[in-house]
Amino acid sequence: MGNCQACCNRPKNTNIRISLPAICFVWQISMIILFGVFVRYDEESDSHWVEYMHKNNITSHVENDFYYRYPSFQDVHVMIFVGFGFLMTFLKRYSFSGVGFNFLIAAFGIQWALLMQGWFHSLDPTDGTIKIGIENIINADFCVAGCLIAFGACLGKVSPVQLMVMTLFGVTLFAVEEYIILNIIHAKDAGGSMTIHTFGGYFGLVISWVLYRPNLHQIYKHETFIIYNHLVFTGTLFLWMFWPSFNSAIANHGDGQHRAVINTYLALASSVVTAIAISSLSHRRGKLDMVHVQNATLAGGVAMGTAAEFMIMPYGSLIVGFCCGILSTFGYLVLTPFLEKHMKIQDTCGIHNLHAMPGLLGGVIGAITAATASKSVYGHEGLVNTFNFVDEFANRSVGTQGAHQAAGLCVALIFALGGGALVGGILKLPLWGDPEDCNCFDDEVYWELPEDEESIPAIIEYNNQMDSKRFDM
Amino acid sequence: MGNCQACCNRPKNTNIRISLPAICFVWQISMIILFGVFVRYDEESDSHWVEYMHKNNITSHVENDFYYRYPSFQDVHVMIFVGFGFLMTFLKRYSFSGVGFNFLIAAFGIQWALLMQGWFHSLDPTDGTIKIGIENIINADFCVAGCLIAFGACLGKVSPVQLMVMTLFGVTLFAVEEYIILNIIHAKDAGGSMTIHTFGGYFGLVISWVLYRPNLHQIYKHETFIIYNHLVFTGTLFLWMFWPSFNSAIANHGDGQHRAVINTYLALASSVVTAIAISSLSHRRGKLDMVHVQNATLAGGVAMGTAAEFMIMPYGSLIVGFCCGILSTFGYLVLTPFLEKHMKIQDTCGIHNLHAMPGLLGGVIGAITAATASKSVYGHEGLVNTFNFVDEFANRSVGTQGAHQAAGLCVALIFALGGGALVGGILKLPLWGDPEDCNCFDDEVYWELPEDEESIPAIIEYNNQMDSKRFDM
Amino acid sequence: MGNCQACCNRPKNTNIRISLPAICFVWQISMIILFGVFVRYDEESDSHWVEYMHKNNITSHVENDFYYRYPSFQDVHVMIFVGFGFLMTFLKRYSFSGVGFNFLIAAFGIQWALLMQGWFHSLDPTDGTIKIGIENIINADFCVAGCLIAFGACLGKVSPVQLMVMTLFGVTLFAVEEYIILNIIHAKDAGGSMTIHTFGGYFGLVISWVLYRPNLHQIYKHETFIIYNHLVFTGTLFLWMFWPSFNSAIANHGDGQHRAVINTYLALASSVVTAIAISSLSHRRGKLDMVHVQNATLAGGVAMGTAAEFMIMPYGSLIVGFCCGILSTFGYLVLTPFLEKHMKIQDTCGIHNLHAMPGLLGGVIGAITAATASKSVYGHEGLVNTFNFVDEFANRSVGTQGAHQAAGLCVALIFALGGGALVGGILKLPLWGDPEDCNCFDDEVYWELPEDEESIPAIIEYNNQMDSKRFDM
Repeated sequence: MGNCQACCNRPKNTNIRISLPAICFVWQISMIILFGVFVRYDEESDSHWVEYMHKNNITSHVENDFYYRYPSFQDVHVMIFVGFGFLMTFLKRYSFSGVGFNFLIAAFGIQWALLMQGWFHSLDPTDGTIKIGIENIINADFCVAGCLIAFGACLGKVSPVQLMVMTLFGVTLFAVEEYIILNIIHAKDAGGSMTIHTFGGYFGLVISWVLYRPNLHQIYKHETFIIYNHLVFTGTLFLWMFWPSFNSAIANHGDGQHRAVINTYLALASSVVTAIAISSLSHRRGKLDMVHVQNATLAGGVAMGTAAEFMIMPYGSLIVGFCCGILSTFGYLVLTPFLEKHMKIQDTCGIHNLHAMPGLLGGVIGAITAATASKSVYGHEGLVNTFNFVDEFANRSVGTQGAHQAAGLCVALIFALGGGALVGGILKLPLWGDPEDCNCFDDEVYWELPEDEESIPAIIEYNNQMDSKRFDM
Repeated sequence: MGNCQACCNRPKNTNIRISLPAICFVWQISMIILFGVFVRYDEESDSHWVEYMHKNNITSHVENDFYYRYPSFQDVHVMIFVGFGFLMTFLKRYSFSGVGFNFLIAAFGIQWALLMQGWFHSLDPTDGTIKIGIENIINADFCVAGCLIAFGACLGKVSPVQLMVMTLFGVTLFAVEEYIILNIIHAKDAGGSMTIHTFGGYFGLVISWVLYRPNLHQIYKHETFIIYNHLVFTGTLFLWMFWPSFNSAIANHGDGQHRAVINTYLALASSVVTAIAISSLSHRRGKLDMVHVQNATLAGGVAMGTAAEFMIMPYGSLIVGFCCGILSTFGYLVLTPFLEKHMKIQDTCGIHNLHAMPGLLGGVIGAITAATASKSVYGHEGLVNTFNFVDEFANRSVGTQGAHQAAGLCVALIFALGGGALVGGILKLPLWGDPEDCNCFDDEVYWELPEDEESIPAIIEYNNQMDSKRFDM
Repeated sequence: MGNCQACCNRPKNTNIRISLPAICFVWQISMIILFGVFVRYDEESDSHWVEYMHKNNITSHVENDFYYRYPSFQDVHVMIFVGFGFLMTFLKRYSFSGVGFNFLIAAFGIQWALLMQGWFHSLDPTDGTIKIGIENIINADFCVAGCLIAFGACLGKVSPVQLMVMTLFGVTLFAVEEYIILNIIHAKDAGGSMTIHTFGGYFGLVISWVLYRPNLHQIYKHETFIIYNHLVFTGTLFLWMFWPSFNSAIANHGDGQHRAVINTYLALASSVVTAIAISSLSHRRGKLDMVHVQNATLAGGVAMGTAAEFMIMPYGSLIVGFCCGILSTFGYLVLTPFLEKHMKIQDTCGIHNLHAMPGLLGGVIGAITAATASKSVYGHEGLVNTFNFVDEFANRSVGTQGAHQAAGLCVALIFALGGGALVGGILKLPLWGDPEDCNCFDDEVYWELPEDEESIPAIIEYNNQMDSKRFDM
């Protein structure tokens, strides 16, 4: 444990033995009840699909959307659990919490997201149930990504109970803002620069601002450590490698998916080169900083999210990555300390530089590229297909689309700022078992750790010992 | 090396310089001969496929089963090698053996499995050869999973030669019980709750019981260590993320695969939430235990195996995971120590709680859900399609199917218990270079380790040193 | 830093603060300009695809090549970044450089490769632009693999600037030799035994020979350490698991891809068994060596590259792996020290044993199996389809094909040896910030490291400190 005598007059109670199981059980049972009442398989997952195929003369199973979407789903899934999870293990004494809490809030969040997003996108009016399929579980992973980004800002300063509460609200806010942006405003945002990164980033930053701890920097000198570890690089690499899948997972079948992969691939490649360049340039002997290499290299993927399926051209994608690698690294060098010193935002993971700012940029790029889209570049049918200019949007011009893209970005920001203030206020209540300043960034608060790493017996003898430890009152 | 003076009167010979290479070479050469005589490419992998396409007016390559199955194959492959492999690295001084022996027995096992399972499922009566394709290599990975589960019970107490022998028998037993359960009894078991987890789990536990070492707990106090390490979490996450692929890999094309993914995804999500709840609840200060988070969170995937492609409904999957997370964590807390103290079963990895018990539960769930299946839920064609009520099984009722599912579970148990006793007896023979009690859980028995981690020269100078070390008699 | 007093009269300048950013910016801006002028989306990635579908009565999006190739692309991508990247982390004090420089040169290399290879394979004569799609990005990853192999030979002895220069030339040479081998000579090489492994391996070895450091072995006694670490095993496993995708990624649709997967899977399985056998046999107590298990087990995949899509038969693949596991392990035991002592080739990663020699063997196997191909085995259409005996090659005999396979292997060697000498000479110029002998294999030369691993403050306080460190002149 940290040295609390220097800072704690009224030590906080971090015993979550009742609150964490209670919240877990109440919410899991609620999920079961709500799924029991509302959630069913969609057409392609239901066993009646066989009859449907026969009636509609579908001879090949490959027309089932499963085969279009499933490979991308697995890639997105890896990003959420391994990518984000391991990216949060950079704090030497908080890595179990980083990856473990990521796991918990994602596992809970995807269930709540299926309900929330399903309500908006998959409600069957004939029977009032939500019909779920592969596209729903991909979207649930996207939704949870927004919450995990916010977690990155608060990492080390909150309890798992607070994180569950944050996820409950975060998922709800996400589902609403996503519906407004994609369905009502009819903006396009395949890779979520607006819905996921801008929203998640600023949502987390505002929460962090509300939960500001004025004494935290004093504690860090002794208690908190960054570890330049390879596990963080595992997180970086799995995010980087699979980002093309992330940005193409719900793009239009065919050329849309194809293009989203290529655009993202190129943006990521160039953001690596410029992030490393700036990192070297900013050190007096040209030495590289692992924090930059592990984070800023990903910024191109974030900024490419909105425009991923647009005809931005390969060189356009390279330019996006070029700029983002520079901006993101500059953020880690200058903006994060500035935010902490002058705006009281303690951004543990530097999500501002990887998600919030590049997400904002991605939304702006989307607006500009949409507004300047033309039939000569897209083809007439291609323009209609890419922007879904159908039904009530059939007569929309590209200029109008650009304006709506910008409006979508504003909606994401409003939800993030307002939602962050609300949720931050709720999390500030002294109910959730959050740690003292001196116990921040320390796994020992919420995890059983070996007393001494060199003397823990194996699981068999361990169990004997644990029997006595665990059940002592 | 451990301190053997306290425990060894007649130290065992752990020099496997002859036995391990001999067994490897004999078996690998045997594989080559047997493949040479018996194994050929199946229709879709043979170059005659092009002619076959032309004759049968197949215009699209996508009808080749490769495109339906291959993405799942890679996911299953990752689970076998990285998932299981890293899950076994939790013993601090036995992690090379954990992941390294996993690698060896899987690489050998998949070859033997292709032969054994191929004999039952892919024998071409016209020429007596076994025709293999993608589905065969997926099934080979499944078969090997059963052996790796058994390895988990014996981890640290056996030599690699014993593991090769265990794999030879384990794969053979698996192939037979799988054929009986899936083909003769005609039970369904897409994700292998019965054929893989129940069989593999109890097979390993019985072997561990036969190989019981009465003095082992005394040694542990000094010699054996659990490491709360992130590599184990890598294993956990890769298993958790890809389990939807595992349970859907050989499900019926189309809705069956789709449904298996969704059911598994949901069961896994809820088992995380309840495993963490029980872990916290069982500690006096609510602290979480990494062993639970790294293992019990997976139980939902195991129990969902049999019923994955059934119309269990999304809430049904959540209930399965809810219960399994609780039961599995309870197992780690109470059952594993009980089995060790009172039944002389030293279950190193706690496979009873992750595979054996949830597998049994999965088989029971499969029996109940099959017996209560109805045309109103499945549709007539859907019912026929899901349970393969065709050919000689065309008139089977769902009640009969349910009884046959239960019979299948019994077959898995019989093979596990009987096979485990037989193989355990063979492994008890003093032929295989197994370690002394004081040398259990120690990589140094079978691996060259750095004398001191801080003074091993690089590979070039290292090779000079190794020359002298390796060839000294 | 290492102890330079013993070895350095004129210490080298390793300050790359100008040269690394300069090279990164110049090259990235050049990429943007060149892509702006030359690179466009191919037909299937362009939004005009929709119109194309309608005109040609294509009703299903699945005919878009994306669905055939994309899952393999992601697997190949993981091999390049995680597989190769983590395989290079075995040097305890050079692991950031290993994985970090792998990341940098791959991210730059894939862009240059898209241009170079695109010039040869995807040039649209109507408008002089290069049209890129999924197959191009897979091929770019292959090209970069060749450069990463070469990096393995030089690991620890070069600066990142030298690596960028090596990549610029390496990619260019690769694109030319690949075009000559695959298009002009019309040899088949699906998994790149010749174009990737033989070329990359000998290219790297020659560069290493040119850059020979006579005093290096003296330094190693104190300064350089191998770490038997699990991260290296992560690299091994991800390469091993996904190699079937690597070797099938650009094989002919349908049976070709299918067969390449099965052949590679089997070759890899048997190379594990024999590598482990030889490793045990070569130690006086039968102990295994992690270097062998982490490297030589992969040799089967390399050697299977050329013949992956041929009708080599499953037993043929087992034989290939059987031999390669033995040869590769023998290489680590005997050949690498020999090369260092007598041929002045300091091969840090032992790429000779994993890539160069097995690649050569793979080329020879390809030549023999092509020359002995027959219509009875392949079928008439199958033979034409497998070897692309169409257009100007329609009348080629299998004997001629075999000879051309051998010629292709010679081309790969010539480019490797000649190109390696040229590039080695360029890299020997004292311009690139390469390290002193005593600073080889030390991350501290090019990376900011924690002064003491136990006293680095978290990112917030860290940034305060870094402000002062980074901007000091």
